[in-house]
Amino acid sequence: MASWCRGVRAVLLDVSGVLYDSGGPEGGAAIPGSVEAVSRIRQAGLKLQFCTNESQATRGQFVRKLQKFGFIISEEEVTAPGPAAKRLIEERGLRPHLLVHDDLLPEFASVDKFEPNCVVIGDAADNFSYQNVNKAFRVLVGLEKPVLISLGKGRYYKETDGLMLDVGAYMKALEYACDVTAEVVGKPSPNFFLSALDTMGVKPEEAVMIGDDVVNDIGGAQSCGIRAVLVRTGKYRPSDESHPLVTADGYVDNLAQAVDFLLASGTAAS
Amino acid sequence: MASWCRGVRAVLLDVSGVLYDSGGPEGGAAIPGSVEAVSRIRQAGLKLQFCTNESQATRGQFVRKLQKFGFIISEEEVTAPGPAAKRLIEERGLRPHLLVHDDLLPEFASVDKFEPNCVVIGDAADNFSYQNVNKAFRVLVGLEKPVLISLGKGRYYKETDGLMLDVGAYMKALEYACDVTAEVVGKPSPNFFLSALDTMGVKPEEAVMIGDDVVNDIGGAQSCGIRAVLVRTGKYRPSDESHPLVTADGYVDNLAQAVDFLLASGTAAS
Repeated sequence: MASWCRGVRAVLLDVSGVLYDSGGPEGGAAIPGSVEAVSRIRQAGLKLQFCTNESQATRGQFVRKLQKFGFIISEEEVTAPGPAAKRLIEERGLRPHLLVHDDLLPEFASVDKFEPNCVVIGDAADNFSYQNVNKAFRVLVGLEKPVLISLGKGRYYKETDGLMLDVGAYMKALEYACDVTAEVVGKPSPNFFLSALDTMGVKPEEAVMIGDDVVNDIGGAQSCGIRAVLVRTGKYRPSDESHPLVTADGYVDNLAQAVDFLLASGTAAS
Repeated sequence: MASWCRGVRAVLLDVSGVLYDSGGPEGGAAIPGSVEAVSRIRQAGLKLQFCTNESQATRGQFVRKLQKFGFIISEEEVTAPGPAAKRLIEERGLRPHLLVHDDLLPEFASVDKFEPNCVVIGDAADNFSYQNVNKAFRVLVGLEKPVLISLGKGRYYKETDGLMLDVGAYMKALEYACDVTAEVVGKPSPNFFLSALDTMGVKPEEAVMIGDDVVNDIGGAQSCGIRAVLVRTGKYRPSDESHPLVTADGYVDNLAQAVDFLLASGTAAS
């Protein structure tokens, strides 16, 4: 039995690249075997939380998209950076300038945005025009104490037709231009993983994270004491298995194989 | 006499923010006193080279724009990163994918761009759309040994209506996304300053650089042994005078005042 299966009571699942690949006219496609794999996790009585850096949509829209692909999933099972950023903004009385995807805007509808004193950057995709990025830059550079909040810091993700630059690249651009360090909400921030565990009521050593991003999923989870398994789907590249800083607790071909291992280990019965 | 004036035989001038501020319907406006200041440098018999990271146009277009503002300037007097990058590409047999301003494309017209094995990034301004930046990213990430050549690494510059993100921000985005370090052609690269000195036939200690960018103009020149003076025009901000890493040899209100100092020191007569 693979040691990463031992005593697992809860599973944290990354979504893009593990459950589905985004992109294309239908918004993406489920990765073969993953719909059944999610169901088998549920049937085995394991706790489950979807831990995503997705910031192109509200949680509601995101869940509806996954349901359309056949996944059984509810909003309460999703830990996402948008709502986490909203909580942080409200706690600190910040007024954000938003550089995010149009579909994420409703998440911040109730937030005061007058005379912004911080910038929130998400995976804005085509909204990352020069004019829009420059507008966010001007807000930041005009602040006495610039605050930049980034919804994740991923480098890129995979769509059906190829790799796409993620929010981390634009976060770095603004960090450099304004000489600030962003506060990252989302993976690999430890608070983000711990909040997902808290929702399930389990300890780090009782959970396993399954993801396709060696730094944000695997390294992030491990830094909180959560075991982590890399799938060879999504943005996975063979060089990830010899990453200079991060070694996963296990490597599997895809989510279906990870669940095969988990269930074969008798985890569910323990 | 200010010590930065002593024994000066040659002047290196930054252009944007020193001679003029770019932007607006006319392409910018001369900074008051700077047209006359350039003429006074010439009349005093000092050698002169314009040392710019401008990459939004060919040298020819750039010179014609400055002539329209009233400056006396010729193409041979301009050291610019576009031609320097072209030389580098040809020496190394590289085939570039270009992420640059449309007006710079003619500079690379004769270069083989089939099946690119490097990316050249310049100040592309509105060409920095998400799609274009992503295309450059895909080229880089698909190369076994990614080569990224950046025309300068400025953070921002000033246009008539405000600050604008410069190429450095997008260079950082691609560096992060592809885990590469860009080769910078242009200021603050020592080779770039030395090539400008070479053109004039003077030694570093005989020249002074005048610029508005504390890191790229002042720090860059000083790293080659060239004295450097910061003007309080262009993108200058008061905090530049207490920069943690760079202290200019002098601070002046504008180019006109720098030339006042130089001529008062009797430099021209020596």
